Amino acid sequence: MVAYFWFNFGYNNEIRILDDAKVQNVRVVDRFNNRQHIIGTIFLTDKHLIFVDPEGKRETWILHSLILSADKLPTTQQGCPLRVRTKHFFSIEFIIPKERDCVELHATLNQLKAESHEKLYCYLYQAPNYLEKIWDPFLLATEYMRMGVPNRDWKVEDSNSNFDMCDTYPPIIYVPMSTTKQMLIGSSKFRSRGRLPVLTYLHPNGASITRCSQPLSGFSARCLEDEQLLQSILKTNSHSSTMYIIDTRPRINAVANRAAGKGYENEDYYSNIQFKFCPIENIHVMRGSLQKVLDACEMKNPSMNQYLNALDSSSWLQHIKAVLDAAIFIARAIDIEKKNVLVHCSDGWDRTAQCCSLSSLLLCPYYRSIHGFRMLIEKEWLSFGHKFSDRCGHTRTSDNKEQSPVFLQFVEVVWQLTQIYPTAFEFNERFLISLHDHSHSCQYGNFVGNCEKDRLDLGVKERTYSYWNYILQNVNDFKNPLFRPQSTYASEVLLPTIHSQTLKFWMNMYHRFDGSILPKENIPNTLTHLIDHTAALNDHARLLEKRIRELRTILENANEQTNHSTTSLPEQDGSSSETEPSQTANKNLPPLSLSSDVESGINSDYSPSDRTSVSPPLNLQHQSSGEIDDIPTIERIAFELNSIALDWRSYQAPLHCTCSLPFDSAQRKYNCWRCGENFCIRCIEHGVRLPGLYSNSLAPVCKTCARSIKSSLSMFENSTPNKSNDQKQAEMKSSLSINDENKI
Amino acid sequence: MVAYFWFNFGYNNEIRILDDAKVQNVRVVDRFNNRQHIIGTIFLTDKHLIFVDPEGKRETWILHSLILSADKLPTTQQGCPLRVRTKHFFSIEFIIPKERDCVELHATLNQLKAESHEKLYCYLYQAPNYLEKIWDPFLLATEYMRMGVPNRDWKVEDSNSNFDMCDTYPPIIYVPMSTTKQMLIGSSKFRSRGRLPVLTYLHPNGASITRCSQPLSGFSARCLEDEQLLQSILKTNSHSSTMYIIDTRPRINAVANRAAGKGYENEDYYSNIQFKFCPIENIHVMRGSLQKVLDACEMKNPSMNQYLNALDSSSWLQHIKAVLDAAIFIARAIDIEKKNVLVHCSDGWDRTAQCCSLSSLLLCPYYRSIHGFRMLIEKEWLSFGHKFSDRCGHTRTSDNKEQSPVFLQFVEVVWQLTQIYPTAFEFNERFLISLHDHSHSCQYGNFVGNCEKDRLDLGVKERTYSYWNYILQNVNDFKNPLFRPQSTYASEVLLPTIHSQTLKFWMNMYHRFDGSILPKENIPNTLTHLIDHTAALNDHARLLEKRIRELRTILENANEQTNHSTTSLPEQDGSSSETEPSQTANKNLPPLSLSSDVESGINSDYSPSDRTSVSPPLNLQHQSSGEIDDIPTIERIAFELNSIALDWRSYQAPLHCTCSLPFDSAQRKYNCWRCGENFCIRCIEHGVRLPGLYSNSLAPVCKTCARSIKSSLSMFENSTPNKSNDQKQAEMKSSLSINDENKI
Repeated sequence: MVAYFWFNFGYNNEIRILDDAKVQNVRVVDRFNNRQHIIGTIFLTDKHLIFVDPEGKRETWILHSLILSADKLPTTQQGCPLRVRTKHFFSIEFIIPKERDCVELHATLNQLKAESHEKLYCYLYQAPNYLEKIWDPFLLATEYMRMGVPNRDWKVEDSNSNFDMCDTYPPIIYVPMSTTKQMLIGSSKFRSRGRLPVLTYLHPNGASITRCSQPLSGFSARCLEDEQLLQSILKTNSHSSTMYIIDTRPRINAVANRAAGKGYENEDYYSNIQFKFCPIENIHVMRGSLQKVLDACEMKNPSMNQYLNALDSSSWLQHIKAVLDAAIFIARAIDIEKKNVLVHCSDGWDRTAQCCSLSSLLLCPYYRSIHGFRMLIEKEWLSFGHKFSDRCGHTRTSDNKEQSPVFLQFVEVVWQLTQIYPTAFEFNERFLISLHDHSHSCQYGNFVGNCEKDRLDLGVKERTYSYWNYILQNVNDFKNPLFRPQSTYASEVLLPTIHSQTLKFWMNMYHRFDGSILPKENIPNTLTHLIDHTAALNDHARLLEKRIRELRTILENANEQTNHSTTSLPEQDGSSSETEPSQTANKNLPPLSLSSDVESGINSDYSPSDRTSVSPPLNLQHQSSGEIDDIPTIERIAFELNSIALDWRSYQAPLHCTCSLPFDSAQRKYNCWRCGENFCIRCIEHGVRLPGLYSNSLAPVCKTCARSIKSSLSMFENSTPNKSNDQKQAEMKSSLSINDENKI
Repeated sequence: MVAYFWFNFGYNNEIRILDDAKVQNVRVVDRFNNRQHIIGTIFLTDKHLIFVDPEGKRETWILHSLILSADKLPTTQQGCPLRVRTKHFFSIEFIIPKERDCVELHATLNQLKAESHEKLYCYLYQAPNYLEKIWDPFLLATEYMRMGVPNRDWKVEDSNSNFDMCDTYPPIIYVPMSTTKQMLIGSSKFRSRGRLPVLTYLHPNGASITRCSQPLSGFSARCLEDEQLLQSILKTNSHSSTMYIIDTRPRINAVANRAAGKGYENEDYYSNIQFKFCPIENIHVMRGSLQKVLDACEMKNPSMNQYLNALDSSSWLQHIKAVLDAAIFIARAIDIEKKNVLVHCSDGWDRTAQCCSLSSLLLCPYYRSIHGFRMLIEKEWLSFGHKFSDRCGHTRTSDNKEQSPVFLQFVEVVWQLTQIYPTAFEFNERFLISLHDHSHSCQYGNFVGNCEKDRLDLGVKERTYSYWNYILQNVNDFKNPLFRPQSTYASEVLLPTIHSQTLKFWMNMYHRFDGSILPKENIPNTLTHLIDHTAALNDHARLLEKRIRELRTILENANEQTNHSTTSLPEQDGSSSETEPSQTANKNLPPLSLSSDVESGINSDYSPSDRTSVSPPLNLQHQSSGEIDDIPTIERIAFELNSIALDWRSYQAPLHCTCSLPFDSAQRKYNCWRCGENFCIRCIEHGVRLPGLYSNSLAPVCKTCARSIKSSLSMFENSTPNKSNDQKQAEMKSSLSINDENKI
């Protein structure tokens, strides 16, 4: 019962509560403890179903487009129960006092699903100000260029530029250099939905992954062009005289397809081919399996055996392992055997997409970065036409039998890999969960429609926001704190040996809203927190060391100074006695202002040749003449010391933000680098430049500290006549309204 | 195949290899990948079976007393396989080229188990120098005093001082104030093995846990004294007019015991009693269940279903849940219902020990600290006579049917709780695993024998080392980085709701030697690393801030100085020109030496009243007059700056220590605070005082840096005639041989 959906899903400040759409005294029963219940009010807005529990200060926001089902259950003494399930595995049971309210709410909720693509949420969504309707262009050609294509083996082909040859393929495709237009057309006619074999991944060793749909071979049909095309593919790779054709279906399914005039390649017709089945079940089996998982998750107080049995008999992890095994087989064939691999299933947009993308992920470290992973999805899932609209059931018209958790399985396999290689992926679990959720939310246009052509027709790039833009704007929330780009696992081919013992049930996906089951503390969040704290301290210590070296230099030079000036003891009220600073043998150094009140006597003569002789046995690091060019005033040093909290409120974190939002495992906590306290995303400002940092980078600071830093800066700015870094401070000042009278 | 056992189990530098006990060209097959194998040599020492793989630089050390079984398998073409299994879930299959070698090794290994208690490893063990044969005394009375006992309700009773009444109980026991000697004797005669009801935990609200064995009631026997004793227990708690008797056996077992003249309390005879069964299976069922778990773990490439099914049908997690459920029931009864609870099973030393200790752990935060947890084990498991020797099978004479993983289950339940409440426990997983392992290793005397009387007779406190001493000497390795003592979970009663979904299979216990199954990176280790790094940076930054404030003060005072001295430019060779330092208005401050070469000109006048007026709008923290009393020389500041690494080699850790020991998930990596590199425990020194730390605390430093720090210190020491902190440096110098000529 928490405010999970606040920031990710369509929250902004303008919420229009629908007329009369408010039901009070609604009771919500804790699924794991029937005795506990919360009483609150349901509001229905144009975008959300909201349940507010005023005592717990908690809010549950459910985006309409995420609602999977709303079911009225038999009326009980306490009221009329309404169970709402979402596509991201949230389930809540409201008990509504009046039956009439329940009937109305039920009817309304069932009317909410979009009638057609034009009514999808992405066309209504008003993003926060920092997001713009800008689509960072994904050009398929760029990604192929990164792989070194076109080259002497592979060429680009625009015969599909009007989607004539295959309407679910991208306008440009990559095929072997030696192919002819005739071969392509012939092959596309011989392949289900026209999805002919095209290049999808080229490994540095020359071996490639190509993908297509099943051939329309039936029991004996053949197609010379298709056979020629496969020979051309084989010849692109000089390392091997044979290539694999991987059929990702169970053999029995492939054989059954023959009766319908489809099927698989006859090895008699295709020479030098190694044919192999990597059995992954079809979308219907997967849908059923997920349903069993969800049933297991929703069991009320099951016994250990019942729960384990239910999970086991869902076979979900078995299916996950099948997908992973297929991907690893392909990756091995490419990297170890150096053979080309052609992958298909039936139509080549579900299992084929899973296997091609996962084997690429294993083969190429680039895809394990956030940017690379985006490219992978754009290429394998979006360009080559995974039917997101049908599989996710975006609109009311979509066929229930077309829905299937194909993309979820892909996301889960990636998660399983992140569990085996915690340091190899730039992104974290939150990223994977977000990706899955937004494939359903329709908040962004990316996952709308069934193929590129659909999205072109729907004008998503003109009329909606891009998910990737959202990710990049919040990229720190999606980074894996354990990622080490230089490590073996992050920079090489991953070829894990998968044992049944290796795979885990993804509690944080399927049980993520069942707080009572999950640990009371989220360890990756603690890690992120510690890494941030270490970065802050490191940065601060660098500045402090620099200041100490500067001050030392001043003191030494003062000693070495032959000519000196006499100063009278200043009075306590701080009347300043300025003298002309002497700048002998000093080229780069600005006049040193030790304090705004007392300026004179000691000037810094900084001669680089002296530096190494300061302390003969020890070498000082980080000494460069560039560092000494902005020796600050005493006030500035005090300001610097005060701008960084050495101690952070760490695990002793409060349960609520100062704004009273409850912290829970889903809410990311941010530490203010200045005061060290914890804040929620609403109460933190991300881009503040703190004077106590060496790197001059932007730090997260709470709103109070941000104001204080800015006003101190302006104050201090106005009271120091001799500024050594005018320009920088002017930049910082630019966003502030400066009161020139404010000198204190 | 790694050197897991190196440091924990009996390693020291004197290893005596038994004559002829060396077998070469032994092959070890990877259990998860039959194709991979390692070829190496087996050595048999007086304490260990060692397998050395010279190429991988890896060593497997198996302590004789940890060997569970050595089985000769049918000879194959490659050689004669010998499978060795250990009590801490390690399993290795050697393939020995010559059958004769195998037969001999097999025979020798089977002779290694101690014939009697007197031959146990603890009597041979030579601990590292830092451990002494000192037993931090555990006095049962101290622990009861902590609980506020004796008080007006409970008294101490010494009628068992010669173990006459019950030989498996401690010499003193705690019973209700109103009991008479006659009642105790009567009750002890009516209880199996004389284990009468005695106090084991007193909650602050006055409710208590008492423990005993089953009554010898048969079908109708009764004992007035026993009934009176229970009434006395009931009356110690004014909050409730009834009390619970918890029988931790399944009802059917309890009923079956009646036929043997034992059984359970008849509610007709005991008034105001609420009788309840909390069904936990007996030692034989548990032994069988663990065996099934181990069989599941050892399966070669099982399918997902086979593995899940095997785990499920072992019912292990079901048993774990049963123990946990019973403990939670008791904790609820005590904390919420405020009722006294009497716990028993059959003899009251297995399930009773589990339930009493776990409910105490839930009820009392003290037991969640390392020290408190030790007390809990000393009290519930050692004092009240859990039969460690029989249950762990320490000697060759022990009955196989007496062995059972009762203590392991307790340890696992604690682990499950640490997973639910990651911040509530001071100790980490390594501690729990170590505790389990050493209950079997017999390296320390603590877990030897079946009761206190046995250990007295065996003279363990005089003749062996104490495990707790080992823990305390290495306590940092056993601390939970997530522990937050002030949090709700760490300071209050824990009453979790346990769902079947909550419990996890403990991979790191049962699969800990199966590296290929576990994640490639250990996240808790990373956490510890980050916390250490943050602490180092924080400490260093404090010192730097202090130095900056000092230098600022010097500069300010220099400005304010009216009388000044003239210095001539010093020559490069560093001839010093000393002048009499002027110490006007300076009481506490030692003469300031800016550098050993140039000393004069500027002296620090530090007047506390000036401090706050330095920068009016900003308050400086940490300013106290005590801080300024050891202003260091320029060299010393350079030395300080150089003594702390700002960047640590963090996750980019190497795979080997400089000493070539491979790092793996079981080896803890230490960072040198000075150079930031990773080292193994052999290459790190723990107690080095680094000049760059504010807190003056001891830091871990690699041996090279430790030498460098010490020699720099001595050098720098000798070249500075005016020392401001003579005493401190003299202390640091004491361990070094100082060359007075060495002035550079």
